[in-house]
Amino acid sequence: MTPPMTEIERLIQLLAKLPGLGPRSARRAALVLLKRRESLLLPLAAALAETGNRVRPCRICGNLDAVDPCAICADGARDDTVICVVEDVADLWAIERTGSFRGRYHVLGGTLSALDGIGPEELNVEGLLRRSAAAKEIIIALNATVEGQTTAHYLMDRLAPAGIAVTRLAHGVPVGGELDYLDEGTLSAALKARRPL
Amino acid sequence: MTPPMTEIERLIQLLAKLPGLGPRSARRAALVLLKRRESLLLPLAAALAETGNRVRPCRICGNLDAVDPCAICADGARDDTVICVVEDVADLWAIERTGSFRGRYHVLGGTLSALDGIGPEELNVEGLLRRSAAAKEIIIALNATVEGQTTAHYLMDRLAPAGIAVTRLAHGVPVGGELDYLDEGTLSAALKARRPL
Repeated sequence: MTPPMTEIERLIQLLAKLPGLGPRSARRAALVLLKRRESLLLPLAAALAETGNRVRPCRICGNLDAVDPCAICADGARDDTVICVVEDVADLWAIERTGSFRGRYHVLGGTLSALDGIGPEELNVEGLLRRSAAAKEIIIALNATVEGQTTAHYLMDRLAPAGIAVTRLAHGVPVGGELDYLDEGTLSAALKARRPL
Repeated sequence: MTPPMTEIERLIQLLAKLPGLGPRSARRAALVLLKRRESLLLPLAAALAETGNRVRPCRICGNLDAVDPCAICADGARDDTVICVVEDVADLWAIERTGSFRGRYHVLGGTLSALDGIGPEELNVEGLLRRSAAAKEIIIALNATVEGQTTAHYLMDRLAPAGIAVTRLAHGVPVGGELDYLDEGTLSAALKARRPL
């Protein structure tokens, strides 16, 4: 019979599920949390509960925020006529960090992948087509991977009949690289030098 | 003026304070948490709150547990006559994982360090001296660093008058280790402490 799991063991087990933390670093993290109860453990518990209870996907663009529509969709100062299509919220964050894009976003929620059985129905493509009616330009900011580029071509085919300018990020994005890991400078330059698809 | 920090930014900032997570991996961790709300984020929030509210240092040995005295001190099947002195709770956990020690522990809470201004008063030395009266053997299981060994010698001096056996962990070749990669000090110690095969 295994003994019941203690509070600390349960905490370590959950921490070990975070990307970047293995069993050993999860133990270290748990100990740091226990030692910094007031300054770290309790604030983190509160931030997680707050985030878990309030943050939801934006019904317009798919971004994650505590308000719906999200702060970006609700921002009247942003340009409605340019929509930047990203695979994931992490990519949206990466582009926001560059500070060089003032349009709207659209989070696809993935890329087409025959291998993983992800077709257009699994992605937020219809929402994009609806929104694109009011747009002048759609920037396809997908990863420079096979799946990303396949998805980009698929979107271009779907958007072409509407006669909207469809652009992609400039080269400068390393081939095979992922947006989330790019430095802001490169990403910013790639955004400025975008070309017709 | 910087905009007010959002829930997600606050979560990322706190996650980045954990050892092993930098700003970038904290962002990835936050996103994984948001995507796995039911299976990871909410359970982690609950585990943190539970641990933060219930786990305290054991008044006898200094171990961290939701009960006081801790489960190890309260375990009647363990040997009261052997006390293993460790620097930190992490070391106690490491020895417990071996499953090869069935005595009691004493967590010092650090090592002597003139540089960091840590003297005997900052460590739980008096508690150890009190407890040692009932013990037959004190195992000094401190790190094999200068501070660890300085502290070990200090404890030996303090414990000597009581006439208790004071032992330390054996130095030697790590199990599975290759001689070729060992430092000279360890190899030299292993050679001196050689045993009949």
